[in-house]
Amino acid sequence: MPQGQPTVVPQDGLTTRQRRNRPLVMVHTGVGKGKSTAAFGMALRAWNQGWPVGVFQFVKSAKWKVGEENALKALGATGQGGPVTWHKMGEGWSWIQRPTAEGEPSHEEKAREGWEQVKRDLAAETYEFYVLDEFAYLLHWGWVDTAEVIEVLRNRPGRQHVVITGRNAPAELCDFADLVTDMSKVKHPMDAGQKGQRGIEW
Amino acid sequence: MPQGQPTVVPQDGLTTRQRRNRPLVMVHTGVGKGKSTAAFGMALRAWNQGWPVGVFQFVKSAKWKVGEENALKALGATGQGGPVTWHKMGEGWSWIQRPTAEGEPSHEEKAREGWEQVKRDLAAETYEFYVLDEFAYLLHWGWVDTAEVIEVLRNRPGRQHVVITGRNAPAELCDFADLVTDMSKVKHPMDAGQKGQRGIEW
Repeated sequence: MPQGQPTVVPQDGLTTRQRRNRPLVMVHTGVGKGKSTAAFGMALRAWNQGWPVGVFQFVKSAKWKVGEENALKALGATGQGGPVTWHKMGEGWSWIQRPTAEGEPSHEEKAREGWEQVKRDLAAETYEFYVLDEFAYLLHWGWVDTAEVIEVLRNRPGRQHVVITGRNAPAELCDFADLVTDMSKVKHPMDAGQKGQRGIEW
Repeated sequence: MPQGQPTVVPQDGLTTRQRRNRPLVMVHTGVGKGKSTAAFGMALRAWNQGWPVGVFQFVKSAKWKVGEENALKALGATGQGGPVTWHKMGEGWSWIQRPTAEGEPSHEEKAREGWEQVKRDLAAETYEFYVLDEFAYLLHWGWVDTAEVIEVLRNRPGRQHVVITGRNAPAELCDFADLVTDMSKVKHPMDAGQKGQRGIEW
């Protein structure tokens, strides 16, 4: 709990309040559980502040995270907090109308289309809180250029918080980010032969 | 994502389905961010399954986690998923009626009252998903006996999942738990003199 006093006060010409309210880039990485789950948990706070929340789910299958998706959409629909928009790569991005004759794009092409939309939304300040779920994988694989992502994030206008999840987040991204948490696996039921279950894993 | 095959198939006499559906005890510990946040993120999945969710917030101040609290209560109120019950030690537990003449109980006494209620709820199978937020601290401090907690959890009836968060979770609890994740701090804005902010930290 961050009641503490910072041990360093930077010479950045900002007041404590200005510094406190700077928008953040956050990275949840590591091989343990909870990277995406904590990002969706953060989205609850953003929702409660009335911030528009945009989720970009950079995963192949649409099967996972249906619990979080249903919950965040239901919250958005209450009208008590911020609106929630959920984009899924697994079902083809909603903003893309594909002619039926065209072949299915590769996972890599879809990932790039997702990032292009994130860039457009950041430029337009569409959301105040972004979850780029599993996005770190794409950077690790080289499908999206890490240097470009850092440049876009560095120059994003206004007050937009961004959380990026996924294993193997590149060191350059972690160096750039304001907050980096590494989730380490200590023990998982799979180690004892127990497979993932409804309500717990999705 | 747990699509994988377990490398070990235990000789426990259970089918894969029976083993998969065993209720879990999960621990989120370590000094990094995301321990509670991931637990509340998991509660979204539980809610989506229609499971009654019980949150026991074992922290002194009621100021924190108001975002998660408002969000989960709003979800519970939609009636689309499971009901959500939120208990806060910081405001005095809701089930306790104190005569005004009585002195304010100590933090330690309140913590024990919280654990006694958890025991009653586990015995009554009140919830299917429990978040015992910051409970690990109480075990670490010896305010609640770890061996007793393990015994109660081991013998809990029915199908009740329990997530325990907090730094310094005792080794015996981690040995007993089905899933343990350690959240490590790699970098935090406080290190650069930036204090916690609304919508991000609470």
